[in-house]
Amino acid sequence: MNIAQLFEQIQQKKSFLCIGLDPVMDKLPKHLLKYEDPVFEFNKQIIDATHDLCVAYKPNTAFYESRGVKGWNTLVKTWQHFPEHIFTIADAKRGDIGNTSAMYAEAFFNCESSDMSFDSITVAPYMGKDSVSPFLNHPDKWVILLALTSNQGSEDFQVKQLEDKKLYEQVILSSQQWADVNQLMYVVGATKADEFKHIRSLAPDHFLLVPGVGAQGGSLSAVCEYGLNKHCGLLVNSARNIIYASNGEDFAEKAHAAALELQQEMEQILKAANLI
Amino acid sequence: MNIAQLFEQIQQKKSFLCIGLDPVMDKLPKHLLKYEDPVFEFNKQIIDATHDLCVAYKPNTAFYESRGVKGWNTLVKTWQHFPEHIFTIADAKRGDIGNTSAMYAEAFFNCESSDMSFDSITVAPYMGKDSVSPFLNHPDKWVILLALTSNQGSEDFQVKQLEDKKLYEQVILSSQQWADVNQLMYVVGATKADEFKHIRSLAPDHFLLVPGVGAQGGSLSAVCEYGLNKHCGLLVNSARNIIYASNGEDFAEKAHAAALELQQEMEQILKAANLI
Repeated sequence: MNIAQLFEQIQQKKSFLCIGLDPVMDKLPKHLLKYEDPVFEFNKQIIDATHDLCVAYKPNTAFYESRGVKGWNTLVKTWQHFPEHIFTIADAKRGDIGNTSAMYAEAFFNCESSDMSFDSITVAPYMGKDSVSPFLNHPDKWVILLALTSNQGSEDFQVKQLEDKKLYEQVILSSQQWADVNQLMYVVGATKADEFKHIRSLAPDHFLLVPGVGAQGGSLSAVCEYGLNKHCGLLVNSARNIIYASNGEDFAEKAHAAALELQQEMEQILKAANLI
Repeated sequence: MNIAQLFEQIQQKKSFLCIGLDPVMDKLPKHLLKYEDPVFEFNKQIIDATHDLCVAYKPNTAFYESRGVKGWNTLVKTWQHFPEHIFTIADAKRGDIGNTSAMYAEAFFNCESSDMSFDSITVAPYMGKDSVSPFLNHPDKWVILLALTSNQGSEDFQVKQLEDKKLYEQVILSSQQWADVNQLMYVVGATKADEFKHIRSLAPDHFLLVPGVGAQGGSLSAVCEYGLNKHCGLLVNSARNIIYASNGEDFAEKAHAAALELQQEMEQILKAANLI
């Protein structure tokens, strides 16, 4: 999926919502425990109830790996259940020396090797260009590079001055030499809304994956004020507020309602910006 | 395992060798392909042939994930096959917001959850303290933080000036506030031998995990010249030179010979430094 196709999906669905599939066993509705793979059943019902309202799904690999082999199996089944035309993000925050990143690319992009082929993967930039390039060698696949993250720890290094730039600014500027806007996005936390104007001056045309709306305290309207661009340019992630909207038998219905609320807000924002 | 126990192992084995278990299907000896899980059989025979010569094993998770569920299963079996008293490193280069890093810690430290419990995990520092702390909350478990890596891309950000320090220097200095020498090591590439004197001035007492000897071009003696400290303080990793010493039926024997050569060199170095 290239940037034009992604924008087309956003226009069709009147939504730039990404749903984070980060299921924790303890938080699952009790009635799902009778299934052989309760986590998959949970994901499946969430996907079935929300896929008309979002343009992307983002399972965070940690929540699957934590359950070992059976968790990894759930991740594969979840990937297989994604509908066509949905942009899929392996939120894996990988990154290693070249030959090792190439193996991570096999894990998340090569279905023949791993039974999964996501459209994109989140990558940590600390190890530099040759840790990112092996992912970009896969045509039509995207790297979503950590830039300015939503957590407290983003203050520790990311916003410190690196030569004449902040580290995260340098990450955004350097990485634009590594790939074009059809293969590269940035993670920018919704809790950093003040920085969006500045980030748009550094990366006017890139899509930004924005976690942190909802549970982490970020505001959708604040993000959109400066974050929107001519292709929308935002994928706003919400996880806990949607997937845990209820822990009863109506969890999927309530997830739909929570996603619908965000979609409707996004539709208004897209209309006001003349993007639909 | 704390720092004193790790040093005890080094003294007993007269070795500070870490063996990287990064198996690639295409490079396995052909006669192993008849086994149900050729990669596990390969690892098993390598471990059986070398465990008296090394103090640590370091499977890089990318090489397992690339094969999907069956690769993850191989990783679990490999972990189960590690002998007691061997320091085990999940070379996973993870790091995410707090609640997510906590799930990664479950994946690699909590046997009840994931069927694996490594002694340590490599972590990328980009997301700062709260991305690292959840791993440190597990008593007796170590974080091995990426500091100055062995690859070309280490030039892109790690050695740039961050305020009055280089980024990697700031990572080393800040992180010393997060845990003591019994839970924190740093990755410093063997290709950066010139920097070891300086790194020892920043972190005199920490263990350093040193990849890049051999295939990547780093030199053991150059690393040791300034890298050794009073507890040895080095785990030097070798992967390809050992595990692919032969691709014939004698691969385990040749792996033993390659490991023995490094162990003997290390024994001389430890003796010369009066550490054994």
